Amino acid sequence: MRAELVIVGTELLLGEIVDTNGPFIAGHLADLGIDVYYKSTVGDNLTRLQEVLSRALGRSDLVLISGGLGPTEDDLTREAVSLAAGCPLEEDAQALRWIENRFLERYGSLSAMSPLNRKQALFPQGSEVIPNPVGTAPGFWLEKQGRIVVALPGVAQELRAMFSETVLPKLRKLSGPEALIIRNLHFSGIGESSLAQLLADLIAEQTNPTLALYASGGTVRVRLAVKAASREQGLALIAPLEEEIKRRAGDYFYGVDKESLEEVVAKAFLERGLTLAVAESCTGGLIAHRLTNIPGSSGFFQRGYVVYTNQAKIEDLGVQPATLAAFTAYSPEVAREMAAGVRSRAGTDYGLAVTGIAGPGGAAPDKPVGLAYIGLACGDNTIVQRHFWKGTREQIKERLACAALQLLWKTINTGI
Amino acid sequence: MRAELVIVGTELLLGEIVDTNGPFIAGHLADLGIDVYYKSTVGDNLTRLQEVLSRALGRSDLVLISGGLGPTEDDLTREAVSLAAGCPLEEDAQALRWIENRFLERYGSLSAMSPLNRKQALFPQGSEVIPNPVGTAPGFWLEKQGRIVVALPGVAQELRAMFSETVLPKLRKLSGPEALIIRNLHFSGIGESSLAQLLADLIAEQTNPTLALYASGGTVRVRLAVKAASREQGLALIAPLEEEIKRRAGDYFYGVDKESLEEVVAKAFLERGLTLAVAESCTGGLIAHRLTNIPGSSGFFQRGYVVYTNQAKIEDLGVQPATLAAFTAYSPEVAREMAAGVRSRAGTDYGLAVTGIAGPGGAAPDKPVGLAYIGLACGDNTIVQRHFWKGTREQIKERLACAALQLLWKTINTGI
Repeated sequence: MRAELVIVGTELLLGEIVDTNGPFIAGHLADLGIDVYYKSTVGDNLTRLQEVLSRALGRSDLVLISGGLGPTEDDLTREAVSLAAGCPLEEDAQALRWIENRFLERYGSLSAMSPLNRKQALFPQGSEVIPNPVGTAPGFWLEKQGRIVVALPGVAQELRAMFSETVLPKLRKLSGPEALIIRNLHFSGIGESSLAQLLADLIAEQTNPTLALYASGGTVRVRLAVKAASREQGLALIAPLEEEIKRRAGDYFYGVDKESLEEVVAKAFLERGLTLAVAESCTGGLIAHRLTNIPGSSGFFQRGYVVYTNQAKIEDLGVQPATLAAFTAYSPEVAREMAAGVRSRAGTDYGLAVTGIAGPGGAAPDKPVGLAYIGLACGDNTIVQRHFWKGTREQIKERLACAALQLLWKTINTGI
Repeated sequence: MRAELVIVGTELLLGEIVDTNGPFIAGHLADLGIDVYYKSTVGDNLTRLQEVLSRALGRSDLVLISGGLGPTEDDLTREAVSLAAGCPLEEDAQALRWIENRFLERYGSLSAMSPLNRKQALFPQGSEVIPNPVGTAPGFWLEKQGRIVVALPGVAQELRAMFSETVLPKLRKLSGPEALIIRNLHFSGIGESSLAQLLADLIAEQTNPTLALYASGGTVRVRLAVKAASREQGLALIAPLEEEIKRRAGDYFYGVDKESLEEVVAKAFLERGLTLAVAESCTGGLIAHRLTNIPGSSGFFQRGYVVYTNQAKIEDLGVQPATLAAFTAYSPEVAREMAAGVRSRAGTDYGLAVTGIAGPGGAAPDKPVGLAYIGLACGDNTIVQRHFWKGTREQIKERLACAALQLLWKTINTGI
C-alpha cells in the first residue's frame, strides 16, 4: 500500500509552526510496513488544496490529511475532499447531535454554539465519521474507487487520539502481514555518546534488527526495528539483541516503548504499596507535575512542596536556619534536611528533595548556574546526589526532574 | 514572488525526524514578503524527486531545496535538478579544490576523501556555487528561464549558515522593499469559535491586514499580518484593527507575540512588588512549574503546595475537616479555604488554589471528571470560579492551569 500525507495550514508555510503530525502518522505507517512516498504541505486555500488532493488521489492508495477541519471559514478540508473525490457534502445527524451534546455538557445550552460549529457535522458522501474523544472536530474515513482518504484535525492531541483509537486499528486490518516491528528501550542517567560507546560493535554490525539511538531531555532511547511476518516473530528476532543491550547498560535501563520514567516510578510505588512526598526548590513543581500526570498517582503521591524561599524551607520542611546560614540553600546539607523533612512532615515512606540553581540569575562564585543536589530519604537513611548541567532554565529543570525520577526508580528497585 | 519548498530525505517520510529547515526558510521568506504556497517532502528517489521539482519549476518563481547534497549514492538533488531544469552537470574546479582543502585541513591528506566526495563538486550548468562554511557539501543557486532554484544541504546547522550568509542577502535584493509584518494577540478564557464569532465581520472583511485564529492548550492566538514597506508602517496599519479586536474581546486578552500567560502574570507581580503562593490539588504542581519557568520568578513566587490528600489540605493549608466532610474536596467551599489558607500560611499578598477531578478515576455521580474550582484570595476577599471541561487528564490539568493564570492576571489588573 502506497500512502501520502497532506498537511493543511497556512501557518505551516509561514514558518510559525513545526509539523509534528506528519512524523507521528508516518512513524505509525512505517510500523505497519506502509510506504509513504510524499508529504505535501499546503495553505488554507481551496484551489491549491483541491489540486494537491486530486494529485494525491491519482497516485496513492491512502491519503492522510491533517488539519482544516475546525469551525472557521479558513477550514477547507471537507470542501476540498468533496471536490477532489467528487462526493458532495452531507450533514451527518449523529455527528451534529454529538457536537451539540458537547456544547450542552460544557455550557448547559447551545447558545455558545456558533453556526460555524454546525459545519463540523458536514462530511463527503459515503464517509465514515471518526469520533474526536478530546475535541469538537470529528474526522472522516472515505473510500472511493479503491482509494482511501482519512481526514483528521490538526490539533496534535486530537489527531493522536483519533489516529490511535480509530484509524490505526482499521489500517492494521488493511496492511499486509509483513510489518516493521519496533521496540524502544529507554535509558536514563547515561549520555547518548556514552551509551553508543557501550553498544559500538552492536551498532556497527546491525542489519535486521537495526539499532538507532535518540536523545531527548535527559533520557536516551534505543530503537530496535525488524521486518517480520508478525509482531511475535519480530519480538523473537529482537529478544537476543535486547538481552545483550540490557546486559551491558542495564543499570540505566528503565522502560520499553511508551513507558515514561514517571510511569515506571508510579507503577513501582503502587505495586509495593509505598507512598511519596516531594520537596522542590529549583524544579519548581515539575517533578510533582510529571508524577501527577499518571492516572492513579493519588494512590502513592501524597504531597508536594515548592519551597522557593528559605522561610518556606524552614516552616514547611523543618530545615534548620543554621544549616541554611552555614551552607546556603544550594548544598548537600540542605538537600538532606529537605528530603528527611518532607518525609517526616508528610508521614510517607519516601521523601524526595531537589535544590539548585536553575538560572539565569542566582549564581555565586562557588555555586554556578546548573549546580543542584537531589536528596532521597527512606526510613532513617538519606542519600544525596550532586549534579551539574549547562543549559537554559527550562533544560536544567527538565534534566534535574529526570535525574530525580531516575534516582527514585533505581532506589526503589535496589534499596537505598 | 511565489516560492515553494522541497524537503528531500526518506527519513522525513519515516517519522523519525521533524523538519525544522522548512519552517526556518519559510519564516525568513515571510519576513521578506515572499509567499510560500507549497512545501513538498519527498524521499531519496530520483524519479519522484525529479517529478516534484518539475512541477515546482512549472508553478513557482523560486524553488528552495533542503537535503540530498551529501556524498552518498542516496544524495540525488543535483541529478534531479539537472534533469528537471535541463542543465547538464559540470564539475566546478574551484569547488573541487575547496572540498580537497577541507580534507587536507582536517585529515592532513586526501586519503580520507572518497570518490563520492568528488561528486559534491558537480553542479547543474550555469549554477553559482554557495559555499558551506560549516561542512563539506556546497549548495548552488541556479537561474533558468526566469526561475530560481536554490539547493542547500539538509544538515540544519549548514543550511542555516548558508541561507543566512549567501541566500538571504541575494533574496533581499530580488524581493521588493515590501515585507510581511506579523503581530500575534493572545487570548485566554474564551474558545476559538466564540472568539471567531465576536470577530466574525472582521474575519470576513480581512484583506490587508489579514486575520487568523489558532487555538492551543486553553489559549487562542489571533494572528494579524500585513504587507508593508517597513515594520513601523506595518504596525501602523495593524493598530486600528488591533484596537477594535481589543475593544470587543479585551476581557480575554493577555499578551502579544511571544508573551505567555505565566510571563505576563510574572511581570504584573514583579512590577507591583506583590507576592504569591499557590495550592494545587488536581493540577499537581503544573501552575507552580509554569510560573517558575519564568526567569526571576523567585521575586514574587514564594511557595507552592501540592495537596493530593485531605490530610495535606488540613495540615498544610488549614482547611477545616468539617468543610471537607460536608462538601468533599471538589467544592467551592474547599477551594475558598485552600486559597485563604495558602495565603495566610505563606504570608503572601495573593493565594491561588485549585481543586477538582482530573480523572480518569475519582468521579462521583454529582462530581464528574473535569469539574474544578479555582479560588483566589487577596486580603480579606476570596473569589471562587467553577469550571468544567472534558478531556484527558493532561488536557484538564493544562486548561485548568491556564484558567487559574488567566484569573490571576485579570484580578491583578482589575482588582478582586
